[in-house]
Amino acid sequence: LPTKISLGPSDAFFPIPAALIVSGVEPKHNVATVAWIGIVSSTPPTVGISLKKDRYTLQLIREFGEFTVNIPSASLFKEVDFCGLTHGRERDKLKAAGLTPIAGKLTKTPIISECPYNMECKVTQELELGDWVLVLGEIVETSIDEDKIDTSNLAKIDIATVDPLVYCAKVRQYWSIGKKLGEGFGAGKDILKEK
Amino acid sequence: LPTKISLGPSDAFFPIPAALIVSGVEPKHNVATVAWIGIVSSTPPTVGISLKKDRYTLQLIREFGEFTVNIPSASLFKEVDFCGLTHGRERDKLKAAGLTPIAGKLTKTPIISECPYNMECKVTQELELGDWVLVLGEIVETSIDEDKIDTSNLAKIDIATVDPLVYCAKVRQYWSIGKKLGEGFGAGKDILKEK
Repeated sequence: LPTKISLGPSDAFFPIPAALIVSGVEPKHNVATVAWIGIVSSTPPTVGISLKKDRYTLQLIREFGEFTVNIPSASLFKEVDFCGLTHGRERDKLKAAGLTPIAGKLTKTPIISECPYNMECKVTQELELGDWVLVLGEIVETSIDEDKIDTSNLAKIDIATVDPLVYCAKVRQYWSIGKKLGEGFGAGKDILKEK
Repeated sequence: LPTKISLGPSDAFFPIPAALIVSGVEPKHNVATVAWIGIVSSTPPTVGISLKKDRYTLQLIREFGEFTVNIPSASLFKEVDFCGLTHGRERDKLKAAGLTPIAGKLTKTPIISECPYNMECKVTQELELGDWVLVLGEIVETSIDEDKIDTSNLAKIDIATVDPLVYCAKVRQYWSIGKKLGEGFGAGKDILKEK
């Protein structure tokens, strides 16, 4: 068995998305890079994002009651990092990053054109956790670039073309995805049969 | 600008971990594959996992007040899928999957030897969300295989060697990581200087 090295209490976590969160409504909108993000329920589909209490994004989310989650492709890693380096109170970060806000379908908060997959969310509740606030949002709409899905079968998102950016927190590294290994709810059936 | 296709409300989300959650204490322990997982606070480091209400893992977490999060390498994708296909009330899934429970440092619940990165968690609260329960756990200890870190600098986890398994939910696909693209809090500095 491998020897384990103790690292103590840590928030190192991977592989995770580095998602672009848009908050607010034109002309007062902002974009922030968030790695503390995940689905928290499927009934209804709900996402959770954790934000530091002093973040401008949190202020705007509270003001408008909604936000959008935008999944970037690997090619956008510099823009994604830029959006995590600076504050939106001082400048229009979307513009500075060369990202294009476009109208959402069910939110007044825009989605990002350059991100292939977008989620529109309405805030349902928030929970204070130390210096962070976990904001939960019901996912009322999702959308994807037309050229990244089989339009005759909307279950078939082409992950290779979406090429979602992978982040490793604490280690602070951006990665691309590599090879498709197998199908969920399928790849393990061999082991199931053996036993 | 690319045309966006509407997919409606959805919990499709990627890239995310497919983590192995161990719950319970020998001889009553279980392993489950969980994709609804993420860090929810850094002060203190806290992870959130969402489980369906009827899951055996939830019952064991409530009974013992702790769980471990085990990040699998890509090579374990079949075992990971197996652990999501079947129920732990009926069999010893760790054994059936060929996974080895070893003692945690601060939890009585074991960690998984074959997973290179492990997190030991004590439950702090839970939140009911539709058919799901979001369980929050303070990360009291983390550990990593000795051969996957620079032991002279414990900040240097070797992600390429850890080779963390990537999951894409709803699409139901396992992927490997590909190439390192750049550094977090670094790669975006060029854009910062330009503006």
